[in-house]
Amino acid sequence: MTERMSLIVFSGTVDKLLAASILATGGAAMGMEVEIFLTTWGLEAFRKDAYKTNMRVSKDFEDYAPAMMEAMQAKHAPSWMENIQGAREVGDVKIFACSMTIELGGIKLTDLEPIVDGVTRVATFVERAKEGRITLFI
Amino acid sequence: MTERMSLIVFSGTVDKLLAASILATGGAAMGMEVEIFLTTWGLEAFRKDAYKTNMRVSKDFEDYAPAMMEAMQAKHAPSWMENIQGAREVGDVKIFACSMTIELGGIKLTDLEPIVDGVTRVATFVERAKEGRITLFI
Amino acid sequence: MTERMSLIVFSGTVDKLLAASILATGGAAMGMEVEIFLTTWGLEAFRKDAYKTNMRVSKDFEDYAPAMMEAMQAKHAPSWMENIQGAREVGDVKIFACSMTIELGGIKLTDLEPIVDGVTRVATFVERAKEGRITLFI
Repeated sequence: MTERMSLIVFSGTVDKLLAASILATGGAAMGMEVEIFLTTWGLEAFRKDAYKTNMRVSKDFEDYAPAMMEAMQAKHAPSWMENIQGAREVGDVKIFACSMTIELGGIKLTDLEPIVDGVTRVATFVERAKEGRITLFI
Repeated sequence: MTERMSLIVFSGTVDKLLAASILATGGAAMGMEVEIFLTTWGLEAFRKDAYKTNMRVSKDFEDYAPAMMEAMQAKHAPSWMENIQGAREVGDVKIFACSMTIELGGIKLTDLEPIVDGVTRVATFVERAKEGRITLFI
Repeated sequence: MTERMSLIVFSGTVDKLLAASILATGGAAMGMEVEIFLTTWGLEAFRKDAYKTNMRVSKDFEDYAPAMMEAMQAKHAPSWMENIQGAREVGDVKIFACSMTIELGGIKLTDLEPIVDGVTRVATFVERAKEGRITLFI
């Protein structure tokens, strides 16, 4: 099987995007091909400039959010977007928008961050993911 | 390995059920065997007639929910239940209820939508999932 | 491929920890190696004594939480921590803390439940997970 990691990024909260970006970084560092499939709220997080103001954290843990944000600033931890940019520099990381979310939301590729490589159907993503080693729903 | 996609449907929100149903559709379209394992809140969503009134959306994104619901109606997008029914028509899609959730909630198979094929233990599900290609926790 | 199940435990709600612990139990019962990687809020749930007072349930389903808690008490269902302890008795179950969460939170291994085996980098976890059969993000 191909050494591929496929990440379905459904959520658009900063804590989950951070986890996804760190997994992508880990996969790229291990020499894996990484494919990120943005769907539903995960795609909203990649709208142009959205990452600059998105402070959304999982409601289940929102009481912890201020401490997490402070620790990240104090330790100069990179943001999830910086992690993804870094992962693309060291490895093979592709980012695709889910065609159904695109159509439902009337979104154009130009509405998204330029880091998004293109639009893909779920069946195409699944066909590639099943030849890989790790597929996660985040 | 078997060309199997195994979906653990833990959540019962409409947005996650929609994602699960679209992944099942994509898997079935690719000729994969799809096994759906309903547990915890995911099983609640398959109680008889519950899908007709379930409007629950992830609290993390509830501010986006009205726009999503409107777009789905405007574009006549199929519901998650219609997607699952469609996936079963084109491919091999089985739906099992988690035996522990069934026992804990005092639920009977007749309390669930008839689309649910039966009750399965988690160990049996895991044994089959590990022979497959993709296993997701949704 | 190794018969390994790798669980990324990102969430720290009781309902998701219960699902993770039952999947670990199922994997161990099937003779699989189980590796649990605790990150973000999942690591908070393994702080010393935290499991004794953690009553956090997914906000998406908090209206169902009292009924679930009552049913668990009435049926003497084991807690998620008891499930994990049980899984370790019957099989090969290892629990690692994510090094980035540890560093960000200024957490020491002695701050965690003694059931945690050690600290691991995400790249090391990914390298092992990709040789396994099932990897889930919970």
